[in-house]
Amino acid sequence: MGALPKRKRAEENGIGSREQLLEAASALMIAQQSVDISLSALAGQSGLNSALVKYYFGGKNGMLLALMKRDAANALAQIEHLASTTLSPTAKIKLHIAGIVNTYHRVPYWNRLVHYLLQDSESEQSREIVDFFIRPLIDFQRKVLDEGVATGEFVSVDPMNFYFSVLGACDSPFFAHYVFELFDSDNDDAWRKSYINYVTDMVMRMISTEKAA
Amino acid sequence: MGALPKRKRAEENGIGSREQLLEAASALMIAQQSVDISLSALAGQSGLNSALVKYYFGGKNGMLLALMKRDAANALAQIEHLASTTLSPTAKIKLHIAGIVNTYHRVPYWNRLVHYLLQDSESEQSREIVDFFIRPLIDFQRKVLDEGVATGEFVSVDPMNFYFSVLGACDSPFFAHYVFELFDSDNDDAWRKSYINYVTDMVMRMISTEKAA
Repeated sequence: MGALPKRKRAEENGIGSREQLLEAASALMIAQQSVDISLSALAGQSGLNSALVKYYFGGKNGMLLALMKRDAANALAQIEHLASTTLSPTAKIKLHIAGIVNTYHRVPYWNRLVHYLLQDSESEQSREIVDFFIRPLIDFQRKVLDEGVATGEFVSVDPMNFYFSVLGACDSPFFAHYVFELFDSDNDDAWRKSYINYVTDMVMRMISTEKAA
Repeated sequence: MGALPKRKRAEENGIGSREQLLEAASALMIAQQSVDISLSALAGQSGLNSALVKYYFGGKNGMLLALMKRDAANALAQIEHLASTTLSPTAKIKLHIAGIVNTYHRVPYWNRLVHYLLQDSESEQSREIVDFFIRPLIDFQRKVLDEGVATGEFVSVDPMNFYFSVLGACDSPFFAHYVFELFDSDNDDAWRKSYINYVTDMVMRMISTEKAA
C-alpha cells in the first residue's frame, strides 16, 4: 500500500471516489445479502482500485464503519427531529416505528453490519458505534416512554424490553426473503405499510393506557 | 484430503468425533459471537483434525447444516408436541413464545446460522433448511392462529406479520450484548423470564379477543 500515490490518485478520482466506494459496498451487501464482501468484489463493483479503501478509510473495517454511519444518518436525523417536536408521545412512537421499518427497508444489511462491527465489544470502534447510534436511540425511546407516562398516554414498561421487541420486530423481515416466498407474498410497498401498521398496533396495545379499538 | 485414512481415523476417534466437532463449532460461535468460524479454530477447540469435517460432513457448509439441525431438534420437537396436544390455542402460543426465546437463549447464533446457510436461496441446502424448519414453524403458527379464530380466542391477524414480529422480537436480545450494558442489566434467567412475559403479553394483546387486563 505504501507505493500508492495518495494525493495524485485522490485528485484523479475526484471527491466522489470515497462515496463511490461506500455506494459499491452498499450495493454488494444488498445483492449478496451479506455484509461479508471482498475487496476484489468491491473493486469490480466500483470500478476503483481497492487500495483506495486503505487511503480513505484506513482499511476495510474503517470503510464498514463509515458505511454504517452514512446509512444511519437519516434515522438519527429523524430521532433528533422527533425529540425536538411538540408532537404527543403516541405520535412520536408511531413515527419512530415507521422510521425504523423504512430504514431497514432502505438498508436491509444495516443491523447485521452493526452487529458485525460490534463483535469485539471492547474495541474503540465498538464504543464509537454505541455512542454514535445505539445510545441516542435508547435515550430517545426512554425519554418518549417517560413523556407518555407523564401525559397519561402510556403505562410504564421496561425500556430495555421495549427496545428489544420493537427493534427485533422491525428488523426481522429484511433478511428473510425466503419467508415471503413461503407465504406467496412480496416485500413491496403495500406489504411494508401493512407491517408498519401491524407493529405499531401491537406496540401501542402494549404501552397505551387506552384500550385497543 | 484424499490421503486421510478415513475408516481408521473414524475408528480411532470413536463415534463421538462427529458430535465433538459440532459441539466445538457451537462453542466457538458462542464465544466469537459470529457464525464465521475457521477450520483451524475448530481444530484447536475440538482437539481433532479439521480434515474430519470433510469426512463427516462433506465440508464446512455440511457441518454448519448439521449443527443447525442438531440445534433445531428441541424446538421442532416442541412444535410437534404442541400441535398434537389438546391445549387451548392461547396456551399453545404462550408456550411457543417461551420456547422460541429459550431456544435463542440456548443457541444464540442459531438465527444467524440459518440466514448464513440461506444466503444462496436457490441451493439444495436452502430448500432443505426451509423444509426442515421454516415451513413446519410457519405451518404450526398458522394452524394455531386458525384454531384460535375458530374457538373465538383470537382475532384474525396476518400470519406472515405475526411470524416476523414474533420471531424478530424473540431473537433480537441474543445478539446485542452491548444493549444490556447500556441498560446496566444482565442477560440472566430473571431477565429472560421477564422478556418472555413482555413478548407474550404484547403478542396476546394483539391477537386475543379478550381485552387486556
